[in-house]
This record gives sequence, structure tokens and C-alpha cells, in this order.
Amino acid sequence: MLASKLYAPTLRETPADADVISQQYMLRAGFIRKMANGLYTYLPLAWKSIRKIEAIVREEMERAGSQEIMMPIVQPAEIWQESGRWKVYGAEMIRLKDRHDREYCLGPTHEEMITTLVRNEVNSYRQLPLNLFQMQSKYRDERRPRYGLMRSREFIMKDAYSFDMDEEGLDASYKAMYDAYVRVFTRCGLYFKPVEADSGAIGGSNSHEFMALADAGEADVIHCKNCDYAANIEIGKPAVLKAAVAEPEGKLTLVDTPDAKTIDAVATMLDLPLERTIKAVVYNVDGTVVLAIVRGDHEVNEIALQHAMESTVEPEMASDEDLKRVGLTAGFISPVGLHQTDDFAIVVDETVMEMYNVCGGANKRDAHYININPKRDFDTKDMRIAPIRLITKDDRCPHCGGELELAKGIEVGQVFKLGTKYSEALHATFLNQSGRPSPLVMGCYGIGVSRTLAAAIEQSHDENGIIWPRAIAPFEAVVVPINAKDEQLMSMATTVYDALRKAGVDVLLDDRKERAGVKFKDADLIGYPIRLTISKTTAETSEVEVRIRKDGESFTCKLEDVADVVCNRLQAL
Amino acid sequence: MLASKLYAPTLRETPADADVISQQYMLRAGFIRKMANGLYTYLPLAWKSIRKIEAIVREEMERAGSQEIMMPIVQPAEIWQESGRWKVYGAEMIRLKDRHDREYCLGPTHEEMITTLVRNEVNSYRQLPLNLFQMQSKYRDERRPRYGLMRSREFIMKDAYSFDMDEEGLDASYKAMYDAYVRVFTRCGLYFKPVEADSGAIGGSNSHEFMALADAGEADVIHCKNCDYAANIEIGKPAVLKAAVAEPEGKLTLVDTPDAKTIDAVATMLDLPLERTIKAVVYNVDGTVVLAIVRGDHEVNEIALQHAMESTVEPEMASDEDLKRVGLTAGFISPVGLHQTDDFAIVVDETVMEMYNVCGGANKRDAHYININPKRDFDTKDMRIAPIRLITKDDRCPHCGGELELAKGIEVGQVFKLGTKYSEALHATFLNQSGRPSPLVMGCYGIGVSRTLAAAIEQSHDENGIIWPRAIAPFEAVVVPINAKDEQLMSMATTVYDALRKAGVDVLLDDRKERAGVKFKDADLIGYPIRLTISKTTAETSEVEVRIRKDGESFTCKLEDVADVVCNRLQAL
Repeated sequence: MLASKLYAPTLRETPADADVISQQYMLRAGFIRKMANGLYTYLPLAWKSIRKIEAIVREEMERAGSQEIMMPIVQPAEIWQESGRWKVYGAEMIRLKDRHDREYCLGPTHEEMITTLVRNEVNSYRQLPLNLFQMQSKYRDERRPRYGLMRSREFIMKDAYSFDMDEEGLDASYKAMYDAYVRVFTRCGLYFKPVEADSGAIGGSNSHEFMALADAGEADVIHCKNCDYAANIEIGKPAVLKAAVAEPEGKLTLVDTPDAKTIDAVATMLDLPLERTIKAVVYNVDGTVVLAIVRGDHEVNEIALQHAMESTVEPEMASDEDLKRVGLTAGFISPVGLHQTDDFAIVVDETVMEMYNVCGGANKRDAHYININPKRDFDTKDMRIAPIRLITKDDRCPHCGGELELAKGIEVGQVFKLGTKYSEALHATFLNQSGRPSPLVMGCYGIGVSRTLAAAIEQSHDENGIIWPRAIAPFEAVVVPINAKDEQLMSMATTVYDALRKAGVDVLLDDRKERAGVKFKDADLIGYPIRLTISKTTAETSEVEVRIRKDGESFTCKLEDVADVVCNRLQAL
Repeated sequence: MLASKLYAPTLRETPADADVISQQYMLRAGFIRKMANGLYTYLPLAWKSIRKIEAIVREEMERAGSQEIMMPIVQPAEIWQESGRWKVYGAEMIRLKDRHDREYCLGPTHEEMITTLVRNEVNSYRQLPLNLFQMQSKYRDERRPRYGLMRSREFIMKDAYSFDMDEEGLDASYKAMYDAYVRVFTRCGLYFKPVEADSGAIGGSNSHEFMALADAGEADVIHCKNCDYAANIEIGKPAVLKAAVAEPEGKLTLVDTPDAKTIDAVATMLDLPLERTIKAVVYNVDGTVVLAIVRGDHEVNEIALQHAMESTVEPEMASDEDLKRVGLTAGFISPVGLHQTDDFAIVVDETVMEMYNVCGGANKRDAHYININPKRDFDTKDMRIAPIRLITKDDRCPHCGGELELAKGIEVGQVFKLGTKYSEALHATFLNQSGRPSPLVMGCYGIGVSRTLAAAIEQSHDENGIIWPRAIAPFEAVVVPINAKDEQLMSMATTVYDALRKAGVDVLLDDRKERAGVKFKDADLIGYPIRLTISKTTAETSEVEVRIRKDGESFTCKLEDVADVVCNRLQAL
């Protein structure tokens, strides 16, 4: 393709509301345009990359035995009411009515749809296993759409669904999808980790997220330096810590801590290390006010808290009203002297129970206790003790005891074992080998196609622009004649361009009548893996300058060798 | 692919609500499933065909210089309010609100969106011409969704938009799209005609529809047996007919026509040919009651009537209220003695003005006049005279005078010259060669991708099932071993299957353990262009039976020649 014909309007200034690198560069380089909050247009460069990602996804899904279909984006409310999710999905689901006042949603996912589709068609174990996938726009009405394509309201997803006759079949389907995902993200050139994940609101029993590691990621991932262990921090199970130093139990003593409303302030005031303090965080879990207690330097794992409360609803921070209702004094809370009621619960982290002589709230204004000994001072029969703290990098690997590392991750894929949640709710049964009706055993598998594009940029860029992995670059190479008005240079550039096209390279010829500096800057910004420069030197020596975007390596090669050299170098990019 | 792995559930019975052949066969053969009224899932066979159509469209669009992008499906109301179409689009537009109560629609088309996209980016004539396209789901909340994929509420469209600096540029862009469409539909194997069309509610100055001719079509097309002329019947301009026989003007005479409320009844009662009668049809055009007069055997062309009334609103049939309000006596109306008022207009077809001694209503119950002579008896200063009749097959070709034919057409594509309608409304200007701001000159171009699939079936089927044009068949050929349990047959079938795949044929191996009769029936129903049968005879003679679905031709060829023979025959299918 010729750059003079390509619709890729670049911007000099980064738009003020672009808050991550991928969004900034995609706007500046003419990949995307914002049409409304969380709604983007993919311009030709972005769309070319998206189609390359889609082709990789399609190939690997088909290799894994999945068949492509296309379900409607607009879904009738009835099937969501049947599964019980019409109410569970809150404001994030975009709903609409048709001219006859019937209700629909814009699909955020398609479990109900696919289950409805197969329930009338798949009747016998002989038709199993079955795996179907689709790629289409999905919708989520984010409260605050942000980060460009990473958290938009309309986004491109690949979603797949597997149907098996039993758990063993599901295990095999899940494994096939897991392996396909590893191939997909490897081929896309991402640095990623499959991490253990919570199955969340979608329901089910087992899940992995595929995390592209990048600073802009919204998820916290913990992984082992020594073994394969990696988990969403929410699911990481830290060991119970025993206090290291032994000393005699001190006497529970009230101390004045005027205005010290945070545990950090208290620790500073009393000159205590945070590990000798306990922290109280108050939640509202489905109407119950829940006091969660962790060590001063630990954080509450809300998913673990939800599990400890056996709730189907995610914990929310308690309001001032909530605290007032159960008589808590914000900033000075501990379980000492408190009791559970019908609408008030206490959950203490297991590690806290191993601490002694610690400092915590006295449940009155401007006062804390020192020398709290939980086993002695807590009414343990009147509280829940559970592992509710987040794992930290100072914990040891739950699998091998090795050192852990924390990283930020962008969730680009997720695989779920759904089991029979939807097949039971929507009555999708088959006759098993004994001739008895049995619910289909399901899995579901998503890939964020548009998010993968953004993740690749978050992982791979420098101060000059994007550095594309070759497989998903809009073009693999760009040929830049430094002066497009010079017929001799243009003729040589065209020769190189033709040779590359013939060799199967996806190449752009920058025939624009711009200064060389502008073209070089654009090439860096857009991020073609290889740049070939045709200059006066080329005319004199028949040598082309080859520049690798990734590491800036630059060398020359003979005109006649250029296709071989480019093909060869592209393999490693 | 192996048929045993293919998800293509067939039905024995045709669903009761399937009202056209394409819908019946696609349901029976496992191509589509209805998920809700007007919302369909494409199963693997249909999706394969859709992707083949999309690939053809993409290739031809790119060949014509258009670049692929992807705009959001969800569109903000503001841009539609800016163009003035938010109110014009009635109940057919699907509207929704987000969590912040902002209004959006599901795009029925994207003129507003694309104009908004380019208005900030295209500033100079140097950036023109520009042509952008996309393929995505579009939405139309049909009052009565029907005919399967031909009139569904969610459907796949390719829409393209061109931007030029002047009318001459638009002419060139339009021609390039027109030619690309001819190539697209030719390659898809459709029998089609580009017909002159009205530009309708979308606005603009020039348009062609691409009509796939088929009995199930909803559009009436007139075309010449002699030359290239073809037009939507609404746009066909018939000549003014002069009465053939001359006779003296008779005296205007009242006759009793009790209960004869239609012109057919009157003609029968008075033993007159219809060509000697005039017919009155009453409309409501944007609030004005309009009396339209045509010859008894002619029909009113509502688009022409709209033009005659210089209205932007489509005529609707008048209500009883409307008639009462202006004092018309239904069934006995003619212009004789009537006068226009502020809310009542009379439009007489030009051909009527050439008639003499005709019969028409007397504007009182149970009475008609004979010997009406319009030039004598109509108050021509108090009415509009315009060409408002539909062309018929008895008219002569407006281009060459040849014989005309009427046909039913399925609109699979349309090309429009929009001019500056949207660029002016949305302030999309560029600096022209004189450095002055000038509105972009636009065209828009649609292809119904999913409708093309249905149209192909409507055109090409028999009582046993679909007969696919090779280019868009889900598979080009099927290999049928008559007994999949016979290892020798399966081995030969696999050899044939492998040879065909190697030769680049998109082939299915029917390895299902079904009876040969079932497989043959399914092969006919699904409609693979070529069927290859591996039987006992093959084992004995090394000859394969080749059957062409289109004409039922059947012959044998040597096992080793099968790939050559199939490739060769496919070229003509």
C-alpha cells in the first residue's frame, strides 16, 4: 500500500483525556478516534492489526476443534430472566426496548444465548463434545470508561462455549482452550502469564485469566520467581504467618491517640512497626456490616472476604450510615469488646490470630489499645476467622516456597469452567450413555481482541512511539525514499517495495512528499518493525539502510538481498 | 472438515413461520436458527458462506480504492440531532439510554458518524478523494420482521462512504463503486440488475439499486428486453399515452352505479374497458389530503406523487376522517366539479389528460359520469398535472422503445450520490484549490451481506434443497462414502478428500455413520456444488461418481483424476 493513499491522520498533540500510552499513541498515530465516551472508531491501521489478531484467534480456535458461528448482539430479556441474571447484572448492562415494548440487552456475554441455542438441538451424548465460538462487539456500560480500548463500552470479544457430557470431558475442553490461548498470545507477541483467577459473577468452579503484564494493567498479579505459579492477587492464598519473636504477653493498656485515625498515624505516634498493629476495614456485604481485621501492613482481599461471608454479592465499603447504625467509631475500631449481631459481623484474618502484643483500636474516639493478644482478648466464638488478607510479594510461593513478585496485568483472556450452572437454569439436557437426561457440562472462554491490541502497545513502546510485534503490526515493514520527488529514489524504492510484496511481506511504501524527518518520525510513531531507507547512498552503492524498530539496530544490505534479509529478520520480531 | 464434527443440525419439518424458501432451507439444513423475532444465529455453514461473501466484498472494495475501518455500532443521539434525522427516523430506529441517561441509537446507517469522523481530519483538497468502508451488524426495528435473513432486525451490511471535492469527483467515486458492485455480485454468482432508484429518505440526487431477481423479492423492477434499461418501478418514467382511437367528444352524462365502489366494478357494470375509465386514489401527504387520478388500469406511483407534491414525506393512504374532512364520497370520486383548498390538492396523471369520453366518479353516492373529457371537464388551473402513474410492462422502454418486462427483485446493494446534504448539516468542509472552505461532496454505498446469502438461495434451489453458486457455497464439494463403517470405502474417501484439499478445494468428508440415502438427501438439501460418491463400484473399478448439484449431471472419473476434474468443473459453477 502507498502511504499517500492511506487514511492515517496523525496528531501533533496528545489529546488531554488520553490517560494511558496505548490510547495516546493510537490517537496520535491515527489508529483510532473517539466518537463518544467509551466508543471508538478503528481507522485503517488499527483495523488491519485487529484483523491480524482475529485471524490468529480463528486459526487457533479451529485447530482446537471449535467452530465459528455468529449469534445476535441484541438479546431478548426472557433468557436472562430464565437464568436469573437479568437482575444480577446492574447498570453495566445496556438495555433497550423494541417498538412493541419488549425488553432486550446488548450482549455483555452469551451464556444464555448459546445455551438456548443448543438446548433444542443437542440431545444425545453422541453429539458431544461441542465447542462453538464467535467474534463480535460486546457491550459494558462502564461507570467511567477509560484507558482507550482497554476499558471501552463497545469492544471486540472472541467468546467460545464448550459442551461436554461430564467433568472429565470439561477438563479436556478446558485444557484444549487453555493451550489454544497460550498459542494465541504467544503468536501475538505478548508477554503474558496464565494466572489462577476467581470465577466471579459469571459462576463456575475453575478459572484462569491470561494476563499481559504491563504497568498500565488494572489487575494485580503475583507470580513465583522459581516455579510456574501465578495468580490474580485476589485468588493467591498466602500462608498463615507466625510472629517471629517471642516475648511475654503484656497487659491490655489504653493509650491516647488523639486524631490518629489511620493505622499508619498510630504506628508513627507510638513508634511501632506496622507488623505490630492490626487494622480494621468496614464493609457492607449484601446488607450486613462486616468488620474485617488484618495486620497493619496487610490489605483485605475482598474476594476472600466475600467467600468468608458466603455471599454472592461483592463487598462494598461501608457508608457512614452503616458505621453509625452498628455503633462503630471510625478510625478507632478493633474487635476488642465488640459482638456480632444480626446485621453486624466480624471477620479476622488467620494471621492476626497468631499475633501478640499488638496495637489496635479501642472503639472510642482518640484511643487505642496496646498489648492486644487476639487469642486472649478477642471473643473468638463470636467472630469468623478466615484467610482474608491479600498475598504480598513478601509472602512465599504457595506451590514451591520460592520468592514472589508482584506485577500489573491487563486481562486479555479468561477461561472458565461453568459446570452445569446455565444448563440447569435453562434446562439444556442430553441423554447420557445410560439413556438418562443429564445437564450439559459447560465451559466458556473469552479473548479481548481489541484489548489485546492495546496490551501489545502497553508492553512494547518507547518515547518515540509503538514497537509492534511483527505478527500484529499493521504493516511489517515500511520503505522510505528520503525524497519522493526524486525519480531515481522513487524508482529504487518501488523496486524494493515490489520485491518485498512478492516475498509476501506486508509492506507500506511511504511515497508522501514530506521531509525525510517527518517520515522517520511517523515510522517510529506508528511502529513498523522494519524500516528501509532509500537515499542518495542507495543510488551510489546499491545499498539499502535497514533499521530494526525494536532495538534501533541499523545496517545496510544490497538491493538484491533486501527481500531475503527482511524476511529473515522478521522471523525474530 | 469432517461431517461428523460439523455442527449443522438438520430439521425434518419446515418451521411453520418460515415464509420464504431461503428461510425454510436455511432452517432445515442447519444454517441458521431464530433466537427472537427478526434475530438469527448463523451456524457454521451459514457463517462460512457469509465469510466468503465478506471476503469478495472486501477484495473488490479494496481494489476500488476503499479502506476498511470499523465505527461503533452504538451512536450518540447528538449527531443525529445535528443532521436532523433523529426525529425523521421513526419507530424503525432502535434507541437506548446509557447509565447517565444519555441517548443513543443502534446504527441503521452511518452517514452522521462518518461525517463527524472526517470533519475534523480532512481539511484540504489534497486529502481527497477518500473512500472508507466497514462491515458490521446494522439495526432496523421492522414493524413485522419476516422472510428470514431478507428482512431481519439485525443484519450484516457493508457500508462505504466517499468524499470528493466536487460533483465530478463524486461521479468518478460513484462509478468506481458501481463497477465494484457489479464485480461483487457477479463473483457471488447472483443473477442481478443494477436499476435506477429513488434516493428516498436518505437524501441525495442519484441512486442505483442492485436487484437480485427472484420471485420472493419485495421490489418491482422493470427492465427492457432490448437494451440495458432497468429501474425500480417507482422510478420508471412511462411515456404519456395518447388515446389510440379518435371519436367525437360525448356529452358528460350521469349514470347510476349502485354499490359499484371500485373502478373494476363500474367497468363491469357498464361494460367498459378499463382503459376508458379513470380511477381516484386518495392520500394524505404530510397533512394535505391529495386526490390522485390515473387511468383505470394504471397504478399511482407514490414516489412520483410525493415529487409532484414537493414533499419530503412519503404519501400515506387517506383515512375515512381525511375523506370526511374534505367532503369526498369514497368509491365515487373524480375531479369533476372539485376544487383545491388549503388542505386538499388534486393531482392528475398526464396520460389521463390525453383521454376522452371516459368514465369516472360523480362525487355522489352510487353515481358515475360517462363521457368525461378531462381537458374540457377538469378545472385544469385548479389542479396539478404530473406524471404520477407507475410504469407497466405494456409501456415501451424509455431509453430505446423496446419491450419491457416486470420482475421481482431483492435489493442486495445500493449506491447513492449524497452530495453535500450531510457535510452541510454537520459542517464538514475542506479548503478547496482556491483556499476557500467548501462542503465535502459525498456518496454512500451499501451491500446487504446477509441478504445476499438469502438472495442466492431464492435464485438457486430446487425441490430438494439449495443449489449454491460455488463462490459462496459453505463447501465446494462433499465426498460421500456410502458406508462409513466399511474401512476400504473410508480409506478411498479419505484419499479423495486429501487430494481435493491439496488441490485447494474447500471440501467436506461425510464420515457420518448414516445410511447413504440420508447423506445424499442432506447433500442435496445443503447444496454442495459437487458430490463425489465412493461406493463398492469405486473399490472394484477405481472410479468415483461425480454429481453436479446444479443440473443433476452424473458421470464417473478415475480416482487419480478426481482433483483435476473437480477443479475444472468448479470453474463453471
